[in-house]
Amino acid sequence: MADSIDRKETNDLIASDKVEGTAVYDRSGERLGTIDNFMVDKRSGKAEYAVMQFGGFLGIGSDYYPVPWRMLDYNTDQGGYVVDLDEDKLKDAPRYQNQNQQPSYDDTYNRQVYSHYGVTY
Amino acid sequence: MADSIDRKETNDLIASDKVEGTAVYDRSGERLGTIDNFMVDKRSGKAEYAVMQFGGFLGIGSDYYPVPWRMLDYNTDQGGYVVDLDEDKLKDAPRYQNQNQQPSYDDTYNRQVYSHYGVTY
Repeated sequence: MADSIDRKETNDLIASDKVEGTAVYDRSGERLGTIDNFMVDKRSGKAEYAVMQFGGFLGIGSDYYPVPWRMLDYNTDQGGYVVDLDEDKLKDAPRYQNQNQQPSYDDTYNRQVYSHYGVTY
Repeated sequence: MADSIDRKETNDLIASDKVEGTAVYDRSGERLGTIDNFMVDKRSGKAEYAVMQFGGFLGIGSDYYPVPWRMLDYNTDQGGYVVDLDEDKLKDAPRYQNQNQQPSYDDTYNRQVYSHYGVTY
């Protein structure tokens, strides 16, 4: 969408504070929610998780869902990220209720999340 | 610094909205400024630039300096990033004055920045 392109976005790069709030769609183009923030490896600078919120979707309120970054595809036309997610996958997905409950992202937790989404850790 | 560790930071990961505002130090431990935001490759999720602000430092006001991410080392003790930068390097470094002037980050610009800092593009 042309109106989503501003000076915080170029063809290849996007500002971190623009990713925060970017819409996330499912494969059919339905808007699922937004990226609240993302978890970055301090040293490499590589994004490891997008922390997503599905406001109201499925009646699951505004919980935070860490989703492996590699599950996200950027869609230029939509000006947002596309993920292969549906209700079933999200119903019992790892989540937390508020930012003070942010997970430890230790090895055990990471394996649990990746395993849930069927992504190689 | 212990008080900089909160639930937006684990041993390896840091939340994007925590990187924003994180302090940057020079090699001698002097605080140079902060990271305003960072530019991420939309697809790979790799941070390419830290956009730094050196408030008041050198009397250069609060311009925005895109610095190649790989120049940053994370220092756990300081709870911030360390860069090998000094006054001379910053005096004529690529910068912009406000967020509406954000650069295009095209090939020409990228080469210019990397060349300025002596980093392989």
